[in-house]
Amino acid sequence: MFSGAQISIYPMTDDFVGIIMSALGALDPYRDRLRIETDDVSTLLVGPAEVLFPAMRDLFTAAAKTGVHCVLSAAISRGCPGEPDDPICNSKVFEGPLAPLPERQATALAAVHSAPTTGVFSVAQLSLYVLGQDRHMDEIYGCIEFLKQSGCFEKSKHFATKLNGDTGTLFATLEQAFCRFGPPDGHVTIDLTVSANSPSAR
Amino acid sequence: MFSGAQISIYPMTDDFVGIIMSALGALDPYRDRLRIETDDVSTLLVGPAEVLFPAMRDLFTAAAKTGVHCVLSAAISRGCPGEPDDPICNSKVFEGPLAPLPERQATALAAVHSAPTTGVFSVAQLSLYVLGQDRHMDEIYGCIEFLKQSGCFEKSKHFATKLNGDTGTLFATLEQAFCRFGPPDGHVTIDLTVSANSPSAR
Repeated sequence: MFSGAQISIYPMTDDFVGIIMSALGALDPYRDRLRIETDDVSTLLVGPAEVLFPAMRDLFTAAAKTGVHCVLSAAISRGCPGEPDDPICNSKVFEGPLAPLPERQATALAAVHSAPTTGVFSVAQLSLYVLGQDRHMDEIYGCIEFLKQSGCFEKSKHFATKLNGDTGTLFATLEQAFCRFGPPDGHVTIDLTVSANSPSAR
Repeated sequence: MFSGAQISIYPMTDDFVGIIMSALGALDPYRDRLRIETDDVSTLLVGPAEVLFPAMRDLFTAAAKTGVHCVLSAAISRGCPGEPDDPICNSKVFEGPLAPLPERQATALAAVHSAPTTGVFSVAQLSLYVLGQDRHMDEIYGCIEFLKQSGCFEKSKHFATKLNGDTGTLFATLEQAFCRFGPPDGHVTIDLTVSANSPSAR
């Protein structure tokens, strides 16, 4: 199953190029497990969810640690029928049949509770899309219920759910939202925004 | 049918607050036809597609005209079964049954060709999601075919299609992608990035 993301980092400073270039070093430990391609709009990361989310976490944390208002925006996708299969995406997360929702929610919560923290506070906003099936809202509601119990739920918004907390906990929560809802071989996407150091009141 | 977007503007400069505050004036002509709510991550615009896309166009154009590298990121949605109906969203665009794909593609192309231009060049990257039906890729492929003929197609990327051109033409193209593909009363979303003045090579 093909999986990956188109991601961008937006540091709100005159030195945005310097901050991006320096944060990219945080991807080095993941480079042999990801395919990475960059153009003027976004950087493509192709790889399994268990590599993708920690890589995005470390990249964003490096940028946010500068204290500058930074945003990471990502279009994350798995199982798109239009994408070719790629061995680099092989993952054990999606093996086996679809477990009942409560079981998947419990697995997701356990993973969030054991996730490493970073000491950097962020807010995140996500929209989960489960495609190619008639009862797509059941899985989306199941995911929102998990998010509400995750410990980093802030509020429901039109079209999105807002979270806040330690950046490590947040990305673990996002990874579980992406992996545990929708069929294992289904087409699932997340439209994600992560923000740190905003001068605006929450 | 409920429709709208969660949008954010990211000016890559120390004076990002000044540029955002000044660009917001571009929304004034639309304020009586949109519901607008802002927090620290995004601004909600609730309203019909024919108001939403021109409003986003004028907001982004105002920010891009400063010459600063600016990005608009948006999660755009219509027909989400979880959202309440709102009279402010009433639109004539979605009346009548679903016409055959070639007819909708022709209508979309005609709208793009008659769209006003702004004199400001941008690039855009979009992912269209058609939810709640089994054959969702047919509509997505139909949309990509329209985008390839739109005059602003740049390239297909994993998970997204990239466009470039006059900002007026781009937003007209995005509006048609959003309105003409997927059933009139269906759940359709776009994950959108629009960028201007990037120092990176295309």
